[in-house]
Amino acid sequence: MNMPSAEDLLGAHVRISSFIHNTPVLTSRSIDTIAGCELYFKCENFQRMGAFKMRGAVNAILQLSKEEKLRGVVTHSSGNFAQALSLAAKEIGVKAYIVMPDDAPEVKKAAVRGYEGEVIECEPSIADRERTADKVQQRTGATFLHPYDDHKVILGQGTAALELLQEVSDIDFLLAPVGGGGLIAGTALAANYFSDGCRVIGGEPFAVDDAFRSLKSGRIEGNESIDTIADGLRTTLGQLTFPIIQRYVERIIRVEEQEIVDAMRLIYERMKIVIEPSCSVPLAAVLKEKGNFKSKRIGIVLSGGNVDVRKLPF
Amino acid sequence: MNMPSAEDLLGAHVRISSFIHNTPVLTSRSIDTIAGCELYFKCENFQRMGAFKMRGAVNAILQLSKEEKLRGVVTHSSGNFAQALSLAAKEIGVKAYIVMPDDAPEVKKAAVRGYEGEVIECEPSIADRERTADKVQQRTGATFLHPYDDHKVILGQGTAALELLQEVSDIDFLLAPVGGGGLIAGTALAANYFSDGCRVIGGEPFAVDDAFRSLKSGRIEGNESIDTIADGLRTTLGQLTFPIIQRYVERIIRVEEQEIVDAMRLIYERMKIVIEPSCSVPLAAVLKEKGNFKSKRIGIVLSGGNVDVRKLPF
Repeated sequence: MNMPSAEDLLGAHVRISSFIHNTPVLTSRSIDTIAGCELYFKCENFQRMGAFKMRGAVNAILQLSKEEKLRGVVTHSSGNFAQALSLAAKEIGVKAYIVMPDDAPEVKKAAVRGYEGEVIECEPSIADRERTADKVQQRTGATFLHPYDDHKVILGQGTAALELLQEVSDIDFLLAPVGGGGLIAGTALAANYFSDGCRVIGGEPFAVDDAFRSLKSGRIEGNESIDTIADGLRTTLGQLTFPIIQRYVERIIRVEEQEIVDAMRLIYERMKIVIEPSCSVPLAAVLKEKGNFKSKRIGIVLSGGNVDVRKLPF
Repeated sequence: MNMPSAEDLLGAHVRISSFIHNTPVLTSRSIDTIAGCELYFKCENFQRMGAFKMRGAVNAILQLSKEEKLRGVVTHSSGNFAQALSLAAKEIGVKAYIVMPDDAPEVKKAAVRGYEGEVIECEPSIADRERTADKVQQRTGATFLHPYDDHKVILGQGTAALELLQEVSDIDFLLAPVGGGGLIAGTALAANYFSDGCRVIGGEPFAVDDAFRSLKSGRIEGNESIDTIADGLRTTLGQLTFPIIQRYVERIIRVEEQEIVDAMRLIYERMKIVIEPSCSVPLAAVLKEKGNFKSKRIGIVLSGGNVDVRKLPF
């Protein structure tokens, strides 16, 4: 299959750079001591709208034709991609239609509207989401953008790891959480093209270990339930993310819910930053397998910080 | 009275620089929009041990004689200065004795011990704290270091504002919270010596508005109760901090408890960083008096991030 190239990734980075933050890489002596290795955290919780998804959304919209831009973009998402597409579209001067299940939290709808996205509500089923997005497309001529299963989106997400590798030398391992696979696929492309043998590992909750099982079986697996606190990781892999992960991701480490919460709290207490639960899965993975990472230099993409701070799980 | 000089402040900065972080200055478009001004947050929550107090502790210990260093240092504190003195002493190779009330939270005693400070417990009264610290001094020959009423400590704390002024040009106002006055006094010295007319304003909870009243009456006032969530600001001004504040601080803005909590939550949600309640008082002050700060460039020293993240007030 046709893989995005090193030039594609560099091109994405140049394209989006004036729309995104080159987020800081933070370290913590005390977490390094606990983990027994050197950790470099790429802080996408400080990204615009609070998550790495801004990168992919900007990269995709900027490559629309002039005519397509006039007609706008549409997606279905109740998560960070909804906000990312809304803000990216606003910044580029494009209309965004966001299909959201009518039972999505009001705060998420308000966030989309705050970025001038138009919320279109639907029944809370995947089928109705897709049907509603189709209708919006037909009515408006807007271009549908998938939250992760799109090479332009994957390349945008990969720029976070690219920046990390540009800033920190001799990284032995890069870890990122795995949901639909956009972030880990982009991270894997960055490591493949722009590191000297850096190995890429995904982190996934046991409760939604579809990526782990997909790598075992060789086909895209689903999840029987989505009962995890890491709400950004409940989606399953896509037709484009899966082959990249198969080729460039070494393996997936699965972690328990309590390990996710403990790693999250550790980041709050030691690093003094706000992250969402999905974020802490890679650190939980490193702490679970300390022996395999001893004294290594490890990059972790902290994916985002959009969490209800009134309802933290600790 | 003898005021520390510009050279004293620069000297303190050079002296401590290898022991502390030059912490980042963060900004937030969305908070700027809400506040109607440009805010520059000096993030001492990312300082070593999690608060600006590290600066003053290092500056004081480094100026001890060789003989004094051999005998160690002692203070009484159950707050950030206890941890700061312990870590600073450890880094410099000096023994630290920390007198703490026996009802202080175990987590605070553990933090001090984690930095190799020796905890000496006493009855929870100011008189017994001082008596116990005296005894430790007599027994060990350790030098007593006051958490704020010491020019070396004040100068150390002032280096945070110095760094902010070095990094961000044309600051119109600098705000810091007021407890014992070490931070605001140091901040005021930095603004006086190293800015072009930057005005310094303190933030204080109504519940412990001793500094506000002290500036009105011209003498150091106490607090009848200490019923505020901003636990770092319950102390009253000292003999050395007060005259600096009288001379160089324009005024104190007082805020309600709910305003402190609201500003704290805003910082968590928009900036994605963990701060302690005392930290959010200056932002609460700016939001309370928006009209007075309209379109100005405002520096805020975020004093620290040592908070129990399991018990956030929102």
